[in-house]
Amino acid sequence: MIIAIDAMGGDHAPQEIIKGCMLALDEYQDISLILVGQQDVLEKELAKYKSCKNRMSIQNASDVITTHEAPVSGIRSKKDSSMVVGLEMVKVKKTQAFISAGSTGALMVGSLLKVGRIKGIDRPALASIIPTKKQGVLLLDVGANAECKSINLVQFAMMGSIYMNKVFERSNSKVGLVNIGEEEEKGNELVKSAYQAMKTASCNFIGNVEARDIFEGNADVLVCDGFTGNIILKLIEGLADTIFLMLKIEFMRNILSKLAAWILKPALRNFKKKMDYTEYGGAPFLGIDGCIIKAHGSSNANAIKNAIRQAQNFIKGNVNELISKEIIKLEDNKQ
Amino acid sequence: MIIAIDAMGGDHAPQEIIKGCMLALDEYQDISLILVGQQDVLEKELAKYKSCKNRMSIQNASDVITTHEAPVSGIRSKKDSSMVVGLEMVKVKKTQAFISAGSTGALMVGSLLKVGRIKGIDRPALASIIPTKKQGVLLLDVGANAECKSINLVQFAMMGSIYMNKVFERSNSKVGLVNIGEEEEKGNELVKSAYQAMKTASCNFIGNVEARDIFEGNADVLVCDGFTGNIILKLIEGLADTIFLMLKIEFMRNILSKLAAWILKPALRNFKKKMDYTEYGGAPFLGIDGCIIKAHGSSNANAIKNAIRQAQNFIKGNVNELISKEIIKLEDNKQ
Repeated sequence: MIIAIDAMGGDHAPQEIIKGCMLALDEYQDISLILVGQQDVLEKELAKYKSCKNRMSIQNASDVITTHEAPVSGIRSKKDSSMVVGLEMVKVKKTQAFISAGSTGALMVGSLLKVGRIKGIDRPALASIIPTKKQGVLLLDVGANAECKSINLVQFAMMGSIYMNKVFERSNSKVGLVNIGEEEEKGNELVKSAYQAMKTASCNFIGNVEARDIFEGNADVLVCDGFTGNIILKLIEGLADTIFLMLKIEFMRNILSKLAAWILKPALRNFKKKMDYTEYGGAPFLGIDGCIIKAHGSSNANAIKNAIRQAQNFIKGNVNELISKEIIKLEDNKQ
Repeated sequence: MIIAIDAMGGDHAPQEIIKGCMLALDEYQDISLILVGQQDVLEKELAKYKSCKNRMSIQNASDVITTHEAPVSGIRSKKDSSMVVGLEMVKVKKTQAFISAGSTGALMVGSLLKVGRIKGIDRPALASIIPTKKQGVLLLDVGANAECKSINLVQFAMMGSIYMNKVFERSNSKVGLVNIGEEEEKGNELVKSAYQAMKTASCNFIGNVEARDIFEGNADVLVCDGFTGNIILKLIEGLADTIFLMLKIEFMRNILSKLAAWILKPALRNFKKKMDYTEYGGAPFLGIDGCIIKAHGSSNANAIKNAIRQAQNFIKGNVNELISKEIIKLEDNKQ
């Protein structure tokens, strides 16, 4: 199995990206990796390592799309960027997956323009795992589509279910609709019509889920429009960071509390790990005719390794083939 | 100044409601309170107290609207409920404000049906304070309008600014638009058109604010549609609860960590207090032709006292008179 990685994307590229690739090569024996990026830079970095080189190669790409540039113009103008080159490798099947910790916007635009959608999928969706009290839940869309129709949400539910069944080995994934009340008649026009459509769709629909109940972890998949999903994802990130910062300030007030906080360090680290969604890998861009995974911009080696494991499960699980089959059924039902 | 309180609404009614009223009467000398609810129940409860009775009276209301019943039918059928009686007292100016910890839906419907809107306000909005790293920020709408137009958001900005200037003594409140990116062109149709409208509106507009940056506390007022606002409010509640629960589990793992957690108790309590939005009072229903405040369902005496202080500042600050004046200016500008 061949997986390509954008070696130039993310805050800690290329060092942590390459380190993560090395960890993955050690751990997973049936993968080969292609690093996409500036050959000289990558060769210099690779020289630090001794092992695994037979399953690691470089695809040169002279340019880099930064997170500061406009996604569309970045993809259109930088034809020899690591991102565009990687996506084109997916298109021509030189790789079975592409992982990038670079610009989310550019990766989404590039995936649509260079790789394209699975036939029948109106809108691909970016999907992210949210940590909960129990197990992680897949939230989609988290930002690919600021505006959605009810049919998009139904397709998100179908794609998310297949993904969770195959990549996270859930059985018959439970799908919830993010809403501002539990009752059927609650919410805006979009969720009200999506609710009705989901009742008859072929997913395991469990009804509306209020934002405060997301963390109960009773669903495997939660669907919403990309505006709402992005707000949820970013709010969790911002609030978790804020809470840690505020706790730290409280704990540092005097010598006794400092000592107590020091004792609690392992407990706090354990907790932080549970809250850390990079533990689950990156965000798959579901509905694209290839396996595209967006790793977090601040990904360290471990996050990259997890994203590689995730790509592996995605391919082994035939996620896209199953989505293709299911979308044909959905289309048939409509007629 | 006369303030009426729904003595039957909320999880801890009437005990904590009455206790909160007593605290307020002790602390604020120029208010009189009217408890609205079942006379016999309230008299029995009041008998426990000795002081303040000369500034406290009871308005009998035989019925109670529960949080389980549908808001519209509750308001329509229970004409002698504490909520309907209280709202009608606002209408006929028997009280200057009404506070309830009862059903949010019923209070919103009841305020619209029994009290009515300020002339020129298309959609009243429920507004709630969100704790941040710095000072609290007012978020609106948090659930009154699942569907909004750009003009509604402009009116929310105006009402929120006046409220924060007068009740929280901010000067020239900074208004942010909740969005999924900082750039002008980001977001769904609603926020894109609202952005343009806000640029020329007479509020101190600081642009888009991403969900992750809400907690930086750089704005005084944040506007969004009621669907998004409700998701944000409930998510914060759910996540904060989840984090506390998960931390507790980690801290209880062994005897040493238990001891350390015990030492940190004051720090944790301090932090919890900072995160507790009932410290700021309740959620005002802005745009209603009267001062209506929704206290949290789980309000304790302190939360009720804070809501009473808030009603006091609302009236002293002439919030509704200022909103009326400003809406005429907005209307004039349109023509």
